[in-house]
Amino acid sequence: MPMRAHPPTPLREQVLHANQELFRRGLARFTFGNASAIDRHANRILIKPSGVPYDQLRAEAMVVTDLDGGVVEGSLRPSSDLATHAALYRAFPHIGGIVHTHSHYATVWAQAGREIPCLGTTHADYFHGAIPVTAPMTDHAISGEYEANTGGAIVARFKTLDAGSMPAVLVAGHASFCWGATVAAALETASILEEVAEMAYHTIVLNAEAAEISSALLDRHFLRKHGSEAYYGQRPSS
Amino acid sequence: MPMRAHPPTPLREQVLHANQELFRRGLARFTFGNASAIDRHANRILIKPSGVPYDQLRAEAMVVTDLDGGVVEGSLRPSSDLATHAALYRAFPHIGGIVHTHSHYATVWAQAGREIPCLGTTHADYFHGAIPVTAPMTDHAISGEYEANTGGAIVARFKTLDAGSMPAVLVAGHASFCWGATVAAALETASILEEVAEMAYHTIVLNAEAAEISSALLDRHFLRKHGSEAYYGQRPSS
Amino acid sequence: MPMRAHPPTPLREQVLHANQELFRRGLARFTFGNASAIDRHANRILIKPSGVPYDQLRAEAMVVTDLDGGVVEGSLRPSSDLATHAALYRAFPHIGGIVHTHSHYATVWAQAGREIPCLGTTHADYFHGAIPVTAPMTDHAISGEYEANTGGAIVARFKTLDAGSMPAVLVAGHASFCWGATVAAALETASILEEVAEMAYHTIVLNAEAAEISSALLDRHFLRKHGSEAYYGQRPSS
Amino acid sequence: MPMRAHPPTPLREQVLHANQELFRRGLARFTFGNASAIDRHANRILIKPSGVPYDQLRAEAMVVTDLDGGVVEGSLRPSSDLATHAALYRAFPHIGGIVHTHSHYATVWAQAGREIPCLGTTHADYFHGAIPVTAPMTDHAISGEYEANTGGAIVARFKTLDAGSMPAVLVAGHASFCWGATVAAALETASILEEVAEMAYHTIVLNAEAAEISSALLDRHFLRKHGSEAYYGQRPSS
Repeated sequence: MPMRAHPPTPLREQVLHANQELFRRGLARFTFGNASAIDRHANRILIKPSGVPYDQLRAEAMVVTDLDGGVVEGSLRPSSDLATHAALYRAFPHIGGIVHTHSHYATVWAQAGREIPCLGTTHADYFHGAIPVTAPMTDHAISGEYEANTGGAIVARFKTLDAGSMPAVLVAGHASFCWGATVAAALETASILEEVAEMAYHTIVLNAEAAEISSALLDRHFLRKHGSEAYYGQRPSS
Repeated sequence: MPMRAHPPTPLREQVLHANQELFRRGLARFTFGNASAIDRHANRILIKPSGVPYDQLRAEAMVVTDLDGGVVEGSLRPSSDLATHAALYRAFPHIGGIVHTHSHYATVWAQAGREIPCLGTTHADYFHGAIPVTAPMTDHAISGEYEANTGGAIVARFKTLDAGSMPAVLVAGHASFCWGATVAAALETASILEEVAEMAYHTIVLNAEAAEISSALLDRHFLRKHGSEAYYGQRPSS
Repeated sequence: MPMRAHPPTPLREQVLHANQELFRRGLARFTFGNASAIDRHANRILIKPSGVPYDQLRAEAMVVTDLDGGVVEGSLRPSSDLATHAALYRAFPHIGGIVHTHSHYATVWAQAGREIPCLGTTHADYFHGAIPVTAPMTDHAISGEYEANTGGAIVARFKTLDAGSMPAVLVAGHASFCWGATVAAALETASILEEVAEMAYHTIVLNAEAAEISSALLDRHFLRKHGSEAYYGQRPSS
Repeated sequence: MPMRAHPPTPLREQVLHANQELFRRGLARFTFGNASAIDRHANRILIKPSGVPYDQLRAEAMVVTDLDGGVVEGSLRPSSDLATHAALYRAFPHIGGIVHTHSHYATVWAQAGREIPCLGTTHADYFHGAIPVTAPMTDHAISGEYEANTGGAIVARFKTLDAGSMPAVLVAGHASFCWGATVAAALETASILEEVAEMAYHTIVLNAEAAEISSALLDRHFLRKHGSEAYYGQRPSS
């Protein structure tokens, strides 16, 4: 991932735009969802303020915090999920943006406590394997620093996974978090995740024994879009 | 709940707006649904007239009744469900508005005769536990004062429940009623109920054994949005 | 039902409007559906021409036929389902309009070969019992006068049913036909049927053992909207 | 099929239009889908460039190739699925256009690895039997000329089928391909396939034992729309 050097103002606009798109695309209803980005040079997170309707958001209202979630700039409270975002930015140093939504079918899988198996090439084009679900949190973790511990549950689940080729997770009984090199990429992933989650839902209902695609097919599709041998789309120079 | 002192005209507009929103949000189709509010100072209920299409409603057409459902003002018949609304206003003294809809998935759970289990945090953010369903009504109750007895069935179901932390109910074989401090709050609850009902439907179809979330997680989410320790959203003064 | 005395031109407009509404409401896609009306004084049926896209229909293009389906006026072929409509007009002398659609969930029940059980009051408000499905047609009936025999299968199914209180049928493996005093009423019934079919679908998937509502509740809801004791809506004079 | 003699420019517009319609009709989201046409006189295929968003496509950007998929004209890379299209054009000499989509329910059946049974007349009006699914591809076929081998899997499946009366296929674990005399006809088939796939999905979920319609009914509906005895729609001269 190339070094990014966005000055604070454009990043602020990117975060605003991603939060508004969550609403426009139907990924977040009411105030269920939030998007953030990080300025890796300044070690500053920009995130949606808590509980503000998407159509009333303005770029200046975005809250700026440090990597521990301490507010540095902004008069509004940050999203109550900030500590989860911060935990992911600390654990996954290559990501630049995070999107949290309660989008319908991704949430359904999270509520069912099931990972989303890779049942087809639509899935394989974006996610290199089954989309993982976290372990249920203990009462102790819930009654303590709940949002930070949610981040901890995700990071624990990724001990054996690569956040680069698996840019999404389901938090059991809750909903999804997606990430990417930018907040726009995280938003795109959240859109695809919802589509893939809905396809997998209907596939499993139609055929509870539906098999995951082969490793060969998974690799073929993931790698024709990602990595040095990719041949999907146009060459960067074109 | 603070004392409300809306003069009759604004309340009339609130009731009109809520009825129109039922239609605009897709919660009520054709004429399946109605919203009401109560003026607790004057002991007057304002409710939609029966069978009038939502796009032809005007504020002046709202029917004003006393707490026994007797028409005090208005030339049109009140909603045929008035007696149910009146029973709820009498039994739940802290509520200021009621919304009745046949919204799709809430009605599906009512028809299935099943309460909606709390399967995730989206649900826990708004409802403090499973959304209850009434017992089936006897033939005697149906052939008698049917609409009043529907209210009685709801009130009976709430003997062991708190209408403040559980602002919705499913009437078996029929549909849902939602309430709140204002008719706008009842409308918001009806919108969330439909979303939660759809999420729970798909979760149970995907995994019939899906577990309710823990009491710890239920409390954490409900209480971070409601009550004196709430930390979601902006402080009232901001 | 009062005698109707619509002159031919308005009836033509009614039929055009109903056909266009089928498309606008999403009840018919492509060219899957047709609406007709009958002038009982003149014994003339007006029906959509076959295979013409809904957005290209004009009132003058409606085909006029006699009760045996013989074309009396119009240069285009009538809908290929004309003979089914004609059979219903002959068998049910009180109906004034018919709508045939492949609307999604009604068709799903027809394909599943199952009648739609009365699982709730939304259904009971419009249909006095389960919505019937015809017996499968024999190869002989299919290879003969297929469309007329489809009408015959419907009429046979209604030997023990009343077309007045049950204004819809599912043709097994095919789709639905609805009717009413006017083509506008038939269209309204087709809209409600689709909603009721979708609610019943989700209810049965959620709870395969979901029970039909009691006769007492069925009668209460059907009769509060229909018949001499109806108390839903406004009095005709108001 | 009559000989077609479209000059290159109109065909280019047809291909552009079909690609844009895939997106407008919701059959393809993001960049999941592509449409092509063939000029049988010149033996030239026109296809969408790879990975270009539908709203940025222009007619001039369509890539022209020979029947082996070699680029003849155009500065952009062709769709990565070109080799599949080319294999179908070589194997099915009567087709003039191909559409590939990941439309939701057709993809669900492909992921479930099940052919779509003919459960009703909506299906029978367009497809003369169950819509077939290919055999899973071997690792060898996947790691080799994957897209060409996908075409090979389709052609193998059609050894005992007629591409004229069965204008669609499901590729196991992937999605659908549809074809027709023109790219517009292939697009129409893709639209109908999605509708039929969704109807069949809900039918099988409602009744896992739902029976296919009889051969007599299948033939009746397919042949009243197709072939020399067709009587649906208007005569070509009208």
